[in-house]
Amino acid sequence: MKIHNFCAGPSILPTKVMDQASKAVKELDKSGLSLIEISHRSKVFVEIMEEACKLALELTKLKDKGYKALFLQGGASQQFIMSAYNLLKNKAGFINTGTWSTKAMKEAKLLGEVIEIASSKEANFNYIPKGYNIPSDLDYLHLTTNNTIFGTQLKDIPSTQVPLVADMSSDIFSRNFDYSKFDLFYAGAQKNMGPAGTTLVILKENIFGKVSRVIPSILDYSIHAKSGSMFNTPPVFAVYTSLLTLRWIKSQGGIDSIGVKNATKSKYLYDEIDRNSKFIGFAAEKDRSEMNATFNLVDPALTESFDLLCESAGISGLKGHRSVGGYRASMYNALPIESVKVLISCMQNLEKKY
Amino acid sequence: MKIHNFCAGPSILPTKVMDQASKAVKELDKSGLSLIEISHRSKVFVEIMEEACKLALELTKLKDKGYKALFLQGGASQQFIMSAYNLLKNKAGFINTGTWSTKAMKEAKLLGEVIEIASSKEANFNYIPKGYNIPSDLDYLHLTTNNTIFGTQLKDIPSTQVPLVADMSSDIFSRNFDYSKFDLFYAGAQKNMGPAGTTLVILKENIFGKVSRVIPSILDYSIHAKSGSMFNTPPVFAVYTSLLTLRWIKSQGGIDSIGVKNATKSKYLYDEIDRNSKFIGFAAEKDRSEMNATFNLVDPALTESFDLLCESAGISGLKGHRSVGGYRASMYNALPIESVKVLISCMQNLEKKY
Repeated sequence: MKIHNFCAGPSILPTKVMDQASKAVKELDKSGLSLIEISHRSKVFVEIMEEACKLALELTKLKDKGYKALFLQGGASQQFIMSAYNLLKNKAGFINTGTWSTKAMKEAKLLGEVIEIASSKEANFNYIPKGYNIPSDLDYLHLTTNNTIFGTQLKDIPSTQVPLVADMSSDIFSRNFDYSKFDLFYAGAQKNMGPAGTTLVILKENIFGKVSRVIPSILDYSIHAKSGSMFNTPPVFAVYTSLLTLRWIKSQGGIDSIGVKNATKSKYLYDEIDRNSKFIGFAAEKDRSEMNATFNLVDPALTESFDLLCESAGISGLKGHRSVGGYRASMYNALPIESVKVLISCMQNLEKKY
Repeated sequence: MKIHNFCAGPSILPTKVMDQASKAVKELDKSGLSLIEISHRSKVFVEIMEEACKLALELTKLKDKGYKALFLQGGASQQFIMSAYNLLKNKAGFINTGTWSTKAMKEAKLLGEVIEIASSKEANFNYIPKGYNIPSDLDYLHLTTNNTIFGTQLKDIPSTQVPLVADMSSDIFSRNFDYSKFDLFYAGAQKNMGPAGTTLVILKENIFGKVSRVIPSILDYSIHAKSGSMFNTPPVFAVYTSLLTLRWIKSQGGIDSIGVKNATKSKYLYDEIDRNSKFIGFAAEKDRSEMNATFNLVDPALTESFDLLCESAGISGLKGHRSVGGYRASMYNALPIESVKVLISCMQNLEKKY
């Protein structure tokens, strides 16, 4: 049976990417060697890394605009402390839109003053705060562009002179976006880019050397930038598979084209959530995420029936996060619209049945 | 043509492991999903992580001895600062045996006093220092058990009451060793354990909470230990492939049996280096590494001829590190003795020819 993978991450990747990655583990091109047993200093791998960095900048339309792309390790969780180490002199502002922003704030506090500029905590993060004032003396303002757990997404990037830093782990490469508004953004690979195990960081080259503290080498962006993401052995499989996905995104027409598809997929599902008398959406309508749709049954007694319908249709990974409950349909780039349609028919079948 | 992979790392892994890893990227067992698109919180992946941790302790004979195994990210380079963050109160001692020890010292210095107890720098690290005194007031003594670049290996673990910490990146699981003499040891996966992208850390459970400083979460061993290496999304492919290698090591009879094979392989090669009039070993005889044999041509004018002989025999990755020059034959667990024999015949052919 075909499985419809709505998992929040690690999550679905294009079938072609998984086929190519699988082949490369057996033998990379016609090298006679597996991808995972070649030197990261070999010509073939250096080219993989360089192409991945180049494509990441090209897809985000940041080529020749003074940005660098890095492939690091440690996930977004490592970026929480790393971004503060490199950028936080005195004071950083945060828009608190959920679990991940909260964690980012906690880490940054170890290195300087942290101001919560706005928060939607009082409503269990079901909306994105708006209309807040941004103090002009912040070293940077940190945003989370998509909140995987709560299913909200930042639609309008705040206008400010303060440098913007963003965690884009769950919506990078998913929509048309002015990436040049950010001084630095990062994303764990395991949603729209590749397997867990590498983190893409894109940053303006002029942010290096802004703080006077001594930074541990592994947490120093300038060291990684100088060495082309080869300060230490990179996670070769995760980087290579990310490159395959970036090539796939390009072959799909880039972010503009992918963005249109994602808007269509999520509109289908949200329309059904709103139409269907058995379901209710969790996130505020105007802040709904195109990546993660969070919703609940109006009558929790139908849980078992709906779960059975989904299971027999091959739907996987639909369970909501414990902080929200209910359901979460993650519709990353690689999820085909057919999977969304299968989910919608399960929802409709439930309604017909009861 | 069969390739004989003498690469220093990322390096050769068992063929069976690469086949299984390749299949899992296509589909994990009969789940209908790829290894890289399943949730790290799924039952199947939690079991993978638990088995990998269990096997790592079993193979090092540390089961039920108060140790924990963790699979983290960031390589040994991250452990240089992480071990200091968690263990360095006032003063740490280091035996400086090469590039990696030097880097480890540099990072630890950010957090406390660092004493170089002994060093072989004056001889370009071609031997392991011995007969030094270890001050009793050290928080820990840091050792590098095998020096990939220089081809030296620590044979006798120093006797001391001071806690021992070791970087075992290039010889973990390669020889019979009393691992219980160490309070903490770590190893990047990409030599004897798996693909680059995960780092095994094994530590005594009683070392938590020894320092009063606030530790960034991602660098706090106790946080990773409490969450079963799932504080953040683990590098699923690297952990799974490491598990496959650990199973393979067990199937080979464990470290005792592997150790005998490694001793045989390296004896073959060192005997030839010593016998063959065209070659000279780099490392001091009694400190020679079973993992990485470093050697040079007596007459550098023969370089091209020897390189051609090796190339036509399918030998790959033999070039020495720039700090030493010449050649380096890395003979990790997965390298078959046949590959060593092929290298030896190339050396003998060179001697016959000139």
